[in-house]
Amino acid sequence: MSISRRALLQTAAAVPFAKLMDAQEKDHIGYCIVGLGRISMGHFMPGCLDSKKSRVVALVSGHRDKAEKEAAKYSVTAGSLYSYEDFDKIAGNKEIDAVYIALPNSMHAEYSIRAAKAGKHVLCEKPMATSVADAQAMVNACRAAKTKLMIAYRCQYEAVNLEAIQIIQEGRLGTVQAMESANGFVERAGEWRLNKKLAGGGPLMDMGIYSLNACRYLTQEEPRYIEGFCSVIDHDGRFDEVEENVSFVIRFPSGIVASCSTTYGAQMDGYVRVHGSKGTLHLQPAFSYEGIKLTAHIQGEPDTEKTNKLNDPAQFTTMADYFSDCLINNQEPKTNGEEGLRDMKYIAEIYKSCGRQTF
Amino acid sequence: MSISRRALLQTAAAVPFAKLMDAQEKDHIGYCIVGLGRISMGHFMPGCLDSKKSRVVALVSGHRDKAEKEAAKYSVTAGSLYSYEDFDKIAGNKEIDAVYIALPNSMHAEYSIRAAKAGKHVLCEKPMATSVADAQAMVNACRAAKTKLMIAYRCQYEAVNLEAIQIIQEGRLGTVQAMESANGFVERAGEWRLNKKLAGGGPLMDMGIYSLNACRYLTQEEPRYIEGFCSVIDHDGRFDEVEENVSFVIRFPSGIVASCSTTYGAQMDGYVRVHGSKGTLHLQPAFSYEGIKLTAHIQGEPDTEKTNKLNDPAQFTTMADYFSDCLINNQEPKTNGEEGLRDMKYIAEIYKSCGRQTF
Repeated sequence: MSISRRALLQTAAAVPFAKLMDAQEKDHIGYCIVGLGRISMGHFMPGCLDSKKSRVVALVSGHRDKAEKEAAKYSVTAGSLYSYEDFDKIAGNKEIDAVYIALPNSMHAEYSIRAAKAGKHVLCEKPMATSVADAQAMVNACRAAKTKLMIAYRCQYEAVNLEAIQIIQEGRLGTVQAMESANGFVERAGEWRLNKKLAGGGPLMDMGIYSLNACRYLTQEEPRYIEGFCSVIDHDGRFDEVEENVSFVIRFPSGIVASCSTTYGAQMDGYVRVHGSKGTLHLQPAFSYEGIKLTAHIQGEPDTEKTNKLNDPAQFTTMADYFSDCLINNQEPKTNGEEGLRDMKYIAEIYKSCGRQTF
Repeated sequence: MSISRRALLQTAAAVPFAKLMDAQEKDHIGYCIVGLGRISMGHFMPGCLDSKKSRVVALVSGHRDKAEKEAAKYSVTAGSLYSYEDFDKIAGNKEIDAVYIALPNSMHAEYSIRAAKAGKHVLCEKPMATSVADAQAMVNACRAAKTKLMIAYRCQYEAVNLEAIQIIQEGRLGTVQAMESANGFVERAGEWRLNKKLAGGGPLMDMGIYSLNACRYLTQEEPRYIEGFCSVIDHDGRFDEVEENVSFVIRFPSGIVASCSTTYGAQMDGYVRVHGSKGTLHLQPAFSYEGIKLTAHIQGEPDTEKTNKLNDPAQFTTMADYFSDCLINNQEPKTNGEEGLRDMKYIAEIYKSCGRQTF
């Protein structure tokens, strides 16, 4: 049975995807950028400049002057600049198909839900929220509004990480037994990431989540058991509210075990090692914006070494275009709200398990 | 106050160190090798050939022909060849100052204790025993007999590992926050290491112990909390009695966290990564007999790369000579019975924590 594009569009129009119709007709997705910080101004928005499918069409910022300066670079009209107070007016802006939320973690839920209520799709930075309840509310709100929700797990769209998944899933490492990962950096005093209310937690929320997510996408399994230990070493004021270090272990249903570390007290060049009965795969850097590199030693194969030559902001272009394609083709994104919610639940389990420590 | 060597010797003679007197007079230690397997024949005994302080003077084996063949290589006289049954006769052999025990793990306790009762010092391979109780009994027996007990933690005497300890303890990495380690190999069906009674456990006993010990000697701290997950993936008969994989996490009193993996199901090139506020230190291979390599990236220092050029069996020479020096100078070895006992207790805690899993 062949269904014409017109018929499909009519079907789409029958459900509340009217806003998508516009996008489909113009073959690109217009993004409203919510939060003008490093990741949006330095990476996501430049990534859209290189894209035909993903365009910056509106900005939300508390600083009008900053917004106007950025607007000029992306040909955003004055009518498409919003403050947080008048954010809900995006509902009436037909240019906006989706929002890209790059706010402190604690604001993800509110603006995702408001965007959904405004009939806009949501691409939200990780971590999805600061609590499982908020993450669930985001999923519910987008489901109710029939808008799509994608969490910006960039690495799940990055070529070298995808190749690692493929090598493992094709069984070329044999039976995977164990893996290790670490990811962290030295956070500076005063950053919002050290504020529990804004960040929801310490390095586990911001950096450890990469290792956790990688263990899941590389194995394509969900943790059966997960636990960790947290600590604060530097009592210099930075870690009055959030942990400085976390180590955690995972046991997957197949029996694969993983051990991971994260920190805000040391520069950790993010990496993943996967040990299989027939070989070892090493990603390092595994999660960075540039130069992600895979090394594999596999029995019976020449040694593999692959580096992603597409440097920043190309990874953001790829991710944005993936979501744009999902919207244009009405497909559920791989890293949807449920995917983000799972990580939130595992993170909550790790934090809960840290409670057994008597510091 | 200056005490003459003669006076010291007289003091030593006052306590039951008569056997040591001989060693001191001849300025070398005579070792009785207990168990002619790969590690003794391939590594420890060749290591003694290169030493002036450590000599192979007696052998214990269940295979007389093998013993005679080895005896010829090391100029061991026929009168110094023992079976396990007549092992206790070593008491009367004045050439023997110490035994080197390289038996399956479950036999370490019995032969260490019998050696102590025979008035001989004990250098015992790791893991020290198959239970905390056995390890404690070994410590007690050697203490009662006033013989020294050293566990053969080779890496604690290896130059590049020692340099790593020094870099960390000098504070050159700044504040150490987190570390990861892995060590493992593919074990073959039929090996005694897969027999629970002989080995006491799976890869944690044989390979994970390197990571555990390294986390301790690199931090110079004792774990405050330690936990792990175990699993069996390959239901091919090899893992009917012992685990195939373990991941474990440690939290040290200072707050340093560590995460480690070990396996008998994959080749893991043993490594340790240490993340400090000022730099990262990487040992890989960290535990092998040859080519142990350290890489350090430290702020304000040129990148460090050191490889141990002293290949097998030189690491064994160093370790044997260290113990020989301890005996000649009547000093307690760094990796004494208590050191081994600590690892046994931590391993027991990890196994106990694995019990919370409902497989």
